[in-house]
Amino acid sequence: MRPTTLGVIGLGAIGGSVARQAKQAGIGAVLGWSPDAAERAAALRLGALDDAPAQPADVARRAQLLVLAAPPAANLQLLDTLHSHLSSRSLVTDVGSVKRAIVARAEALGCAAQFAGSHPLAGTHANGFDASRPGLFAGAVVYVTPTRNGAAAAREVAHFWEAVCDARPVIVDAAAHDTQMAITSHLPQVIASLLGRYLAEHAPPGTTLGPGAKDTTRLAASEPGLWTEILLMNRDVLLPALRALEEPLGELEHALECGDAGAVAAWLGRGAAWRRRIDA
Amino acid sequence: MRPTTLGVIGLGAIGGSVARQAKQAGIGAVLGWSPDAAERAAALRLGALDDAPAQPADVARRAQLLVLAAPPAANLQLLDTLHSHLSSRSLVTDVGSVKRAIVARAEALGCAAQFAGSHPLAGTHANGFDASRPGLFAGAVVYVTPTRNGAAAAREVAHFWEAVCDARPVIVDAAAHDTQMAITSHLPQVIASLLGRYLAEHAPPGTTLGPGAKDTTRLAASEPGLWTEILLMNRDVLLPALRALEEPLGELEHALECGDAGAVAAWLGRGAAWRRRIDA
Repeated sequence: MRPTTLGVIGLGAIGGSVARQAKQAGIGAVLGWSPDAAERAAALRLGALDDAPAQPADVARRAQLLVLAAPPAANLQLLDTLHSHLSSRSLVTDVGSVKRAIVARAEALGCAAQFAGSHPLAGTHANGFDASRPGLFAGAVVYVTPTRNGAAAAREVAHFWEAVCDARPVIVDAAAHDTQMAITSHLPQVIASLLGRYLAEHAPPGTTLGPGAKDTTRLAASEPGLWTEILLMNRDVLLPALRALEEPLGELEHALECGDAGAVAAWLGRGAAWRRRIDA
Repeated sequence: MRPTTLGVIGLGAIGGSVARQAKQAGIGAVLGWSPDAAERAAALRLGALDDAPAQPADVARRAQLLVLAAPPAANLQLLDTLHSHLSSRSLVTDVGSVKRAIVARAEALGCAAQFAGSHPLAGTHANGFDASRPGLFAGAVVYVTPTRNGAAAAREVAHFWEAVCDARPVIVDAAAHDTQMAITSHLPQVIASLLGRYLAEHAPPGTTLGPGAKDTTRLAASEPGLWTEILLMNRDVLLPALRALEEPLGELEHALECGDAGAVAAWLGRGAAWRRRIDA
């Protein structure tokens, strides 16, 4: 769908970018809400919004498409409180990076036909409206996760991402999405944070980090509050992945202890062959 | 020192860049050797070298400064075989990323006064002469590690990096260097490879990786043979660091199991505060 009135709840890096992109793409009315009145005022002043009512229900009532762009746990609560304010032909999506919980919530609330989850792969470790920009989603994959009877809503939401945000929507089951994200996103976040913690405590003061250490730890700068919600919502699939790292790490330690160059090289070679293909 | 004749043994990304930069900086004669005759010919043809004799001893005999730019284990053997060919006023350095072993070798061979180790922080996961370029060291930190009675040689080698390669030399004890590198370079390499291995085996085929997963695993593409030597040479300080990751990882797993949001947020916060300062 290409809504004539778009509502955005949460004006951080993602929500702010949706609003700014929608204005740039010529959407007639973009309404936005943030719990932070100063953020609402700033978004209005910068032309990202046409209106910024004080209550999120006033956005929900008027929007043909409502985008929930608060942190994941807040999005669940927003869906609880706002779904009854939607017109019967409006649709809702969210932009959280874990999808089973909110898809299940939409089904439990009886608004499954009006809901599809979204997850744009356009995250940034910066946050807040200041980190938003139109064009953030251009060319980016956006996963769209249907509810049980929400295939039509998912197609409309996918079309919004494509037509308005120039993104590449991919419709996928919420459980498959969450499993994939545990491996390709949440696990890298934990690993980067683990390394960042260690370096924080052990790197000599004033150490110069090379580009490798900077890249490997870049995700550690991500917002802890947001990531706490993500990791907890997906812990059932994340925890087995974390525990599965112990065995190969032990194998490397053993190979180093034994001075087994062939085993160390083979161990490093597995990831090298894979990673070289990614950039190829 | 600013040598009138520079010798470079090993014409990969680092050695090739030293040669090309030296030519660009106006060094009179740059001699180079690689075990690969085609690589020698290519470097000569591209103007990176003035001469490429078939034997490394022919480079060592004529160079005022000899740069060993083979992999670390090969550099040890090259120092063994080439030191007797050096003129008594010539100096030698290497560019390996582990420094205790080669500093100790120079001392054992009795050429300590002519040797200082070097480690330019300008690595790249690409390799070979094709990945070399003049300017690679511009602004980069280069650690220079003196032997026991090699303070004067270290100052001369440091001056070479500064005056010819436009780098920022930092003179540091080899043991302190290796400890710092275990933490800030070798540990990130292992972590990136560990994650890369896991993703290689578990990411669904055709998965789109976000920028975070790409950054966190970028180092996994590094050359396994080279890194096997580095990790083995520094295993005495690397292994305790690797084992020290187990406890904080277990802490996070426990916090996730318990659903302890405060503990997860505090755990993530440690690395976040540190990493944000790095880019600030």
